[in-house]
Amino acid sequence: MRFTAAELGKLLNGVVEGNPDVTVSELAKIEEGSTGSLSFLANPKYAPHLYTTNASVVIVNKDLVLTGDVKSTLIRVDDAYSAFSVLLEKYNTIKQNKTGIEQPSFISTSATVGENLYLGAFAYIGNNAKIGKNVKIYPQAYIGDNVKVGDNSVIFAGVKIYSDCVVGNNVTIHAGTVIGSDGFGFAPQADGSYSKVAQIGNVVIEDNVEIGANTTIDRATMGSTIIGKGVKLDNLIQIAHNVELGANTVVAAQAGISGSTKIGESCVIAGQVGIVGHITIAKGSQFGAQSGVHKTITEENKKWNGSPIDPYFNSLKTIQVLPRLPELERKVYELDKTIKELKGDK
Amino acid sequence: MRFTAAELGKLLNGVVEGNPDVTVSELAKIEEGSTGSLSFLANPKYAPHLYTTNASVVIVNKDLVLTGDVKSTLIRVDDAYSAFSVLLEKYNTIKQNKTGIEQPSFISTSATVGENLYLGAFAYIGNNAKIGKNVKIYPQAYIGDNVKVGDNSVIFAGVKIYSDCVVGNNVTIHAGTVIGSDGFGFAPQADGSYSKVAQIGNVVIEDNVEIGANTTIDRATMGSTIIGKGVKLDNLIQIAHNVELGANTVVAAQAGISGSTKIGESCVIAGQVGIVGHITIAKGSQFGAQSGVHKTITEENKKWNGSPIDPYFNSLKTIQVLPRLPELERKVYELDKTIKELKGDK
Amino acid sequence: MRFTAAELGKLLNGVVEGNPDVTVSELAKIEEGSTGSLSFLANPKYAPHLYTTNASVVIVNKDLVLTGDVKSTLIRVDDAYSAFSVLLEKYNTIKQNKTGIEQPSFISTSATVGENLYLGAFAYIGNNAKIGKNVKIYPQAYIGDNVKVGDNSVIFAGVKIYSDCVVGNNVTIHAGTVIGSDGFGFAPQADGSYSKVAQIGNVVIEDNVEIGANTTIDRATMGSTIIGKGVKLDNLIQIAHNVELGANTVVAAQAGISGSTKIGESCVIAGQVGIVGHITIAKGSQFGAQSGVHKTITEENKKWNGSPIDPYFNSLKTIQVLPRLPELERKVYELDKTIKELKGDK
Repeated sequence: MRFTAAELGKLLNGVVEGNPDVTVSELAKIEEGSTGSLSFLANPKYAPHLYTTNASVVIVNKDLVLTGDVKSTLIRVDDAYSAFSVLLEKYNTIKQNKTGIEQPSFISTSATVGENLYLGAFAYIGNNAKIGKNVKIYPQAYIGDNVKVGDNSVIFAGVKIYSDCVVGNNVTIHAGTVIGSDGFGFAPQADGSYSKVAQIGNVVIEDNVEIGANTTIDRATMGSTIIGKGVKLDNLIQIAHNVELGANTVVAAQAGISGSTKIGESCVIAGQVGIVGHITIAKGSQFGAQSGVHKTITEENKKWNGSPIDPYFNSLKTIQVLPRLPELERKVYELDKTIKELKGDK
Repeated sequence: MRFTAAELGKLLNGVVEGNPDVTVSELAKIEEGSTGSLSFLANPKYAPHLYTTNASVVIVNKDLVLTGDVKSTLIRVDDAYSAFSVLLEKYNTIKQNKTGIEQPSFISTSATVGENLYLGAFAYIGNNAKIGKNVKIYPQAYIGDNVKVGDNSVIFAGVKIYSDCVVGNNVTIHAGTVIGSDGFGFAPQADGSYSKVAQIGNVVIEDNVEIGANTTIDRATMGSTIIGKGVKLDNLIQIAHNVELGANTVVAAQAGISGSTKIGESCVIAGQVGIVGHITIAKGSQFGAQSGVHKTITEENKKWNGSPIDPYFNSLKTIQVLPRLPELERKVYELDKTIKELKGDK
Repeated sequence: MRFTAAELGKLLNGVVEGNPDVTVSELAKIEEGSTGSLSFLANPKYAPHLYTTNASVVIVNKDLVLTGDVKSTLIRVDDAYSAFSVLLEKYNTIKQNKTGIEQPSFISTSATVGENLYLGAFAYIGNNAKIGKNVKIYPQAYIGDNVKVGDNSVIFAGVKIYSDCVVGNNVTIHAGTVIGSDGFGFAPQADGSYSKVAQIGNVVIEDNVEIGANTTIDRATMGSTIIGKGVKLDNLIQIAHNVELGANTVVAAQAGISGSTKIGESCVIAGQVGIVGHITIAKGSQFGAQSGVHKTITEENKKWNGSPIDPYFNSLKTIQVLPRLPELERKVYELDKTIKELKGDK
């Protein structure tokens, strides 16, 4: 992609200041801009970079007052940040404009696929699977038997979706993620071995969900593991069998949620958090990184931290005392000695 | 699959009460049952649902006394829970009845495969690999050179098994798991860089092991990383080079075991536990979630918790004090002040 | 591979003692050696095994004095450990001598590939990708559009590299790892939902990097996520968008580094460590296992531990007090009581 400043000015409904014929072919931060790159200035903190950047074109707010010479062509718009976001989105869409069915790929004769499918080479669509419109399935992805994928969803390279799972509309699943593997259910036997409990449920991923790379979501023992509408999951997350995540809940990388736990809407779960099984978390709950969540939470919209969790500010206070613990212990035994002396004195 | 109540009654050696011709095609929890679904009632706690469920068929204990009207057809059996388990197992077996070799797939001319193989499309079997009888290898799985896979094992989609590894009989490995990647061994050099230590051992997975999704098990530097008979591993677990796991040990999701550590039989390792390298853990040891195991444990069958670990009940007591630490510190400095005053008084 | 003791002696410039015609076909630890295996003795601690091992050939230091009968053929060399390392390396190289292009595989007509490529079956090379010389790309790996891979790099089975990423020379990436998935960037909306922030940067992996299995490295929002020269990453690690890792930094399994954090050269990050976003870590910093790193570190070459981190030895002292906390609390309330009595006495 290569655009002139004039073309971008028209696209963004902005005013071009400087050479309208200069061209850009890549995006860069203002402090890293080089010839041929397009940048933006929204945060006044970065304003000094405007006078030193080598970016060929910079998008700025229309009311920006220059305080020095600028080499770049400027495009003045109502809101530089929004304008740049629009361009990013467009750029990304162009990059993901894959269409058609590459060969060799595998589509079961009993599967149905919607219009405008992209199916990468070595991708697999199983028996009776139903794929919606405008879906992109990248190379080496696996769509098991009876799986449903809604419209406009993107399944990146090497994603594995086991049989009977349901993926909604506008869902994005990143490379290497596994949906619908067996829940971890084993019954102890008298001889010390374990007998597998069949896992015959599925996973339901509702609309507008995005899931990162190499995350795992187990199928329910019975019924469904449910990822609610608008949920955003990062990379390397573990979601165990029969978990339910409420709408618009966000989970950061390497967090793990154990079996049958129900998480409310709009929760925020930071990185490496662990949540035990069979509990319920009220909507709007927030957990700091590496927290250990060991109990049901009924109060909504509360922040927690620590392992095991404590209310957020309590936890911060506890954490501050920890480095002083050896000193505190010494102090206590000094006091003990002093008191014994005082008592002895009497 | 579609069964009539009469067929199920015969299959389970039960007595049908109600319409024997009603059909079911899916399984559901009794509280979620709808027309066409089969459920069961074992736990008396759920008995009230029997009078409201829409499940077409419900399996119940033969001695159940009804206290109201029931819409569902009932099948009375000796033990409803066991009967339902039998059905689950059967259902799962039917779902995993894949056979035959899909095309395109890749089998080295020097590999040997047993009878009744399922090989999914885009799966790969390397040179001199030996695959047993009744093995299922799902699409896009990779079986490296010289790998052996025993009878009745199931390798799900996208599993990667490096060269020279050995997988026993009745082993199940879920999607995305990597077996036999190089151990993390690097020797520091004078210039600050690291030189790789060749990892020429392998991984041996004994019979009846089940491994979850996206787990990683590194090959030994020399010799074998060993996953003992009947071990159950969950998702996203890290097993480093030269680790040995004793028979029937269970490890939950996101736990990590560092290099050369030997874990005894029948241990239970909870989620997100970390175990350092080069230690030995006695049989029957149990570790709470997020524990950090930093030392050899010689006493058998003991429970541990915390990071670093402490005997379980000690750890629980310590944990209870943590939220009171700021208060405790304040108290100590108050006492200090009071004592100084007392001493001053004298 | 099968070698006679005589061949090995010549290869290692050593002196053969015993039967020069005995053959070996595998490597083993001296205490596990069996007929047909080659072992070595470097550490005097293991010397007793020399008189009991069944290894057919053992490499020993030339100045070793025997104190008993030895069944094995010995090869005396200047430095037994180095000699064995040379053999290991050679053995490994032979094992990884794959060449040629297996079918079916997918190479875009606009991609360019260097000489001596190994491309496994079901591997995919996208549009305009540029692959260097002597590269090995194992089965089912995915190289996205515009990706560059340098000379002598090895991409194991099922690795996924998204479009526009750059991989240097002599880089090894283990199975299942994902490079260049979208950073976790979402802007909260008024209705509680999240809007995706386009992630248009890439990942740059410099020369001599090794990356373990099922690790994830997200692409930058803009610019590049950078893995510096000589970095070694273990399995199941999360590297978020816009992170930069300095040269020769080492990261153990299951550690996670949040967005935009910059790590200096020659750091050592142990297993399951979590590092928050938008901070800077001085070169030579070291973090103990399960540490939580919450702040910028400016002092170089310092060791840290704990969650949140504290200087290493402080942390060890704190950790030692933890199991005594319940006792400490009891003590404080005893003192309180005693003091009240003392005051009351007056």
